[in-house]
Amino acid sequence: MKTADVLVIGAGPCGLFQVFELGLLGLNAIVVEALEQPGGQCAELYPQKPIFDIPAIPEISGAELTQNLLRQIAPFDAQFCFGERIEQLEARGERFWLRGSLGSEFDVAAVVIAAGAGAFKPVRLKLEGIEALEGQQLFYSVRDRAAFAGKDLVIFGGGDSALDWVMALETAARSLVLVHRSERFRAQPALVEQMRELCHQGRMRFVAGRASDYRCVGGGLSAIELTDSDGKAQWQAADSLLVFFGMVPDAGPVKLWGLAMEANQLRVDTERFETSLPGVFAVGDINTYPGKKKLILSGFHEAALAAFAIKARLEPGKKVQLQYTTTSPLLRRRLGIDTES
Amino acid sequence: MKTADVLVIGAGPCGLFQVFELGLLGLNAIVVEALEQPGGQCAELYPQKPIFDIPAIPEISGAELTQNLLRQIAPFDAQFCFGERIEQLEARGERFWLRGSLGSEFDVAAVVIAAGAGAFKPVRLKLEGIEALEGQQLFYSVRDRAAFAGKDLVIFGGGDSALDWVMALETAARSLVLVHRSERFRAQPALVEQMRELCHQGRMRFVAGRASDYRCVGGGLSAIELTDSDGKAQWQAADSLLVFFGMVPDAGPVKLWGLAMEANQLRVDTERFETSLPGVFAVGDINTYPGKKKLILSGFHEAALAAFAIKARLEPGKKVQLQYTTTSPLLRRRLGIDTES
Repeated sequence: MKTADVLVIGAGPCGLFQVFELGLLGLNAIVVEALEQPGGQCAELYPQKPIFDIPAIPEISGAELTQNLLRQIAPFDAQFCFGERIEQLEARGERFWLRGSLGSEFDVAAVVIAAGAGAFKPVRLKLEGIEALEGQQLFYSVRDRAAFAGKDLVIFGGGDSALDWVMALETAARSLVLVHRSERFRAQPALVEQMRELCHQGRMRFVAGRASDYRCVGGGLSAIELTDSDGKAQWQAADSLLVFFGMVPDAGPVKLWGLAMEANQLRVDTERFETSLPGVFAVGDINTYPGKKKLILSGFHEAALAAFAIKARLEPGKKVQLQYTTTSPLLRRRLGIDTES
Repeated sequence: MKTADVLVIGAGPCGLFQVFELGLLGLNAIVVEALEQPGGQCAELYPQKPIFDIPAIPEISGAELTQNLLRQIAPFDAQFCFGERIEQLEARGERFWLRGSLGSEFDVAAVVIAAGAGAFKPVRLKLEGIEALEGQQLFYSVRDRAAFAGKDLVIFGGGDSALDWVMALETAARSLVLVHRSERFRAQPALVEQMRELCHQGRMRFVAGRASDYRCVGGGLSAIELTDSDGKAQWQAADSLLVFFGMVPDAGPVKLWGLAMEANQLRVDTERFETSLPGVFAVGDINTYPGKKKLILSGFHEAALAAFAIKARLEPGKKVQLQYTTTSPLLRRRLGIDTES
């Protein structure tokens, strides 16, 4: 059983900044994130694309934003659980019990849901029964590139991820085919050029089409049928499939916890950013209130006010004073900065 | 008569960011600021002190924060009026007429009050009639340090500003006396040490006490009477006085405009951040609502929502769509960034 003052669901920008605001008030946090890394949509959907409306940062990529926030919260030493999504949440007396998809259990005094559009899941390859091969011969991300050495590999997708992995695995794989539905790619033109050059050299093949069938031998994948845009099918030897069709958000279990919702968003007040269940708060893209805009900067404000509300909840009757990081020796001590007067 | 879509009162961080959020929505702004430079409290009270709680910026000085915001709003080409405070505001039909302390008149479709704690004023030296010397021989800030060369200078104050200027002007002045009410200083200990060392070397004097009288010859200041903590008075030749007793905010004329207030703050809703007078909005430290914390990051959120409300007010019946700087060609064009797909 893991324990902390607060459990934060989601390690996107708002979840990360929530850790900071809690930390300033002397509260510690566990952050549970469905993805394998922090950053949420910023890291998942546009890690390299610039964002221009983070206040006082004229231009920053999603990846840099995430790095900055991680540096900012470093003094507070939050616990992180990556690759796990919270499936159950129950109020137990004054505290909350939660359970994650990997079986972890948590006991905390308050919960902040900062789950954005929900946990991200890869768009699946649609072939009947092929999900049985997931994690064996069918993958939606690369955890260990050595696993593809000497394989007959088929990579699906037309974005940067697909093309990046074509380049990264081309020499290691025994054979490599890239499959994308058309000759038009979302990936950077330079990557597409490189891929076409590899095809020209006979080191790989590109098929504009889709997977239409597959064949197993002895329980393992042995070949996949590819159908091109003219409807012509061909069989391709394949024992490993890597699919990059992008990620879709999935609101998932949040809906099952009995919290008041409005058009798939959690309804909160604008004083505490608390859901209909006292002690459970929601910040960022997952919440709604009159005037709500899904802006990262709004999530930062929501996280700050939620932190003050949580502090007041955990220490009832005690006045929570607003102090400033520029002048407060207490805050500076919590931030690990030497206090000079 | 100056005109724009929106007049923003105050060029502190929230006022500056207000320009950005308005600009993203295609609205232009005039910013009127009582101080001679942008940055508000950040620039005035702690330009060099680090701030640690601007989201995604682990550490930044008030001066840097201001510079970053100015760079961020540069694409929107706001008009700035420095050194002027708005004294009158009147609704005229659907628009607003405002008048500044220098006589400027403004005609705008909406107003955002981002005046923080109010216009800052230096705490004055209290000696009858001495205000007549202001700008001649009595100064509350240094605009031109050459003006003190060869002078009999008396500096008042015990903070960093007073001590910094002691160090900066000691060699240029003909004589230098520092006056502070006690032996205890707010200034950094290292500065105080340096000052004591200069006294030890006979290059300046320190008097723990206060100014009790002054003498003029031919309309100009010639000497000042200093009374020490024991009540002993002495006359000191002086033709220049530099006073650093700190700044005090002065809410000023805002109180006279008939807007609903609560404990000296402007009451706003949390959907539009609009005051009791439709079309007049308030963001940052000057407003209040349930849960309000005087945090810069909250002002940023308030400015964003106020901008959307203003856009809706100026274009009634037209839906204001939320677009993202990362992906919207329109926003990227407004920001002056080339649109690549």
